[in-house]
Amino acid sequence: MTQSTLVLVLDLIGIAAFATAGALAGMEKGLDLFGVIVTAAVTGLGGGVLRDVLLGATPPASFTDWRYLVAPVPAAVVVFFRSARIARQHRALLVLDAIGLGLFAVGGTEKALRFGLGSLAAIGLGVITSVGGGAIRDVLLGEIPVILRREVYATAALLGGVIVVVGSGWHVARTPVAVGAVVAVALTRLVSLRRGWNVVTAAPARHV
Amino acid sequence: MTQSTLVLVLDLIGIAAFATAGALAGMEKGLDLFGVIVTAAVTGLGGGVLRDVLLGATPPASFTDWRYLVAPVPAAVVVFFRSARIARQHRALLVLDAIGLGLFAVGGTEKALRFGLGSLAAIGLGVITSVGGGAIRDVLLGEIPVILRREVYATAALLGGVIVVVGSGWHVARTPVAVGAVVAVALTRLVSLRRGWNVVTAAPARHV
Amino acid sequence: MTQSTLVLVLDLIGIAAFATAGALAGMEKGLDLFGVIVTAAVTGLGGGVLRDVLLGATPPASFTDWRYLVAPVPAAVVVFFRSARIARQHRALLVLDAIGLGLFAVGGTEKALRFGLGSLAAIGLGVITSVGGGAIRDVLLGEIPVILRREVYATAALLGGVIVVVGSGWHVARTPVAVGAVVAVALTRLVSLRRGWNVVTAAPARHV
Repeated sequence: MTQSTLVLVLDLIGIAAFATAGALAGMEKGLDLFGVIVTAAVTGLGGGVLRDVLLGATPPASFTDWRYLVAPVPAAVVVFFRSARIARQHRALLVLDAIGLGLFAVGGTEKALRFGLGSLAAIGLGVITSVGGGAIRDVLLGEIPVILRREVYATAALLGGVIVVVGSGWHVARTPVAVGAVVAVALTRLVSLRRGWNVVTAAPARHV
Repeated sequence: MTQSTLVLVLDLIGIAAFATAGALAGMEKGLDLFGVIVTAAVTGLGGGVLRDVLLGATPPASFTDWRYLVAPVPAAVVVFFRSARIARQHRALLVLDAIGLGLFAVGGTEKALRFGLGSLAAIGLGVITSVGGGAIRDVLLGEIPVILRREVYATAALLGGVIVVVGSGWHVARTPVAVGAVVAVALTRLVSLRRGWNVVTAAPARHV
Repeated sequence: MTQSTLVLVLDLIGIAAFATAGALAGMEKGLDLFGVIVTAAVTGLGGGVLRDVLLGATPPASFTDWRYLVAPVPAAVVVFFRSARIARQHRALLVLDAIGLGLFAVGGTEKALRFGLGSLAAIGLGVITSVGGGAIRDVLLGEIPVILRREVYATAALLGGVIVVVGSGWHVARTPVAVGAVVAVALTRLVSLRRGWNVVTAAPARHV
């Protein structure tokens, strides 16, 4: 497996993981099959599209490679016809989602650096890449985006971006840094879930 | 009438049709005149703006030709002062909207092909062009977009994109293909409305 | 202080003013610190990002200058820990917001003219620049954007764009026109607040 094949496979895993979460959210709203496919596609591809539009890298990558465009569809179809069974795999879904978060955050930050953005903007774009798809989905479904309300989700993505930027500044080889950053994001996310960590809130009682 | 004049006239008809629907949605929310003009403009122009931003064809066409920019305004003003009378023209509105759907889906797919996108992405962009304006309007008005909830609306747009892509692959002359595709979209939409077709839903009882 | 320093300082004032309003809106929804920073950033930077994406001026200015990116953070932090005290400064907040509105409307229109847009499109882009950030925030927080519902907010921004376009057409020196336009927008906004002006509504009783 060449490195570019590896990148493709990892991208598709991230997209499928996010698409699965998106499809489940669509099911909860009682959408039809088409609506579930749309929410899956928006969740899986939205972050990358936002990233590419903001970088001026248009048309977005997911529009120029049909494998990206198609990846959310099987996830949506499986969820649609087997939603109860899928939703029961709660732990597997959270692990997949955490890995997706890491892949998107790291990939977004790396692409931003390649396009010449500064450190801070690159980290910010990594966060946008990793949480953007879910945020668009939540807005479409009439919900306040989860990232505004909950836990250290976006903070974990931030950590991944920081690792990539620091590694790039120190000229460490790209691959080990990227792998380490993805793992760090996923672990932070999973450990925070298990421990119930939350960013400080001013009014915990009103915290949804 | 030259062909480019024809294209302009058709575009303006599509924009005005969508803008009228948007203005009526704004009236239902009790917006003021300015708010109704904004919802009309967003509905009429939003899909094309999304298309052009995704293609990197910026500034979007509707910002570089004042006729596009102005087209939603009379529609909004007429709806604002005569909303009861307009809303009563239920059947005419649906026909206009169906034609608008076809014009946007076909135009979006054609532009995407001209920009070098693949078949699947071009069809997807046609759908985004035709349903994007209405989706942005629904989000602004605090509603879950109709396309996620109802009928074969987006499916009809998809059909138009498929016809354009197939025609382009077979090197059929552009104009008859485009006309046929617009007619096919509009008829699919109108027949499906009359027959109450719906894409399969998992939980019909909860279907809004 | 050179002119470009002046422009920077004014931009940062506008961003901070909008970010403060955004942070207060986030507090009202009971968001955590991260959520409040995000709503502040979206409100302060969203309009400019929209403007740059629509112009094809990507990556947006706020991604290429870290001072823009950072400006909303102190505003958000101060609001988060001192929200009651900040919210009490009602009058100062409205004045700041009115100045921000003028700065964004004028800056947006000027940038659009520099990118070769026509008069009407440039004025429209000025309005989008000045109300876009607040609209994105409102959508994220599940509210119908204020600009669709209330007062002459966007109309004041429109006035600023008109002044810039007319001044540019008459080849008046840029700086006095810009200053005059910002002052006109801010005064219109403040006077309209005091007098309770509203754009005509069809159904005042249902007006939220």
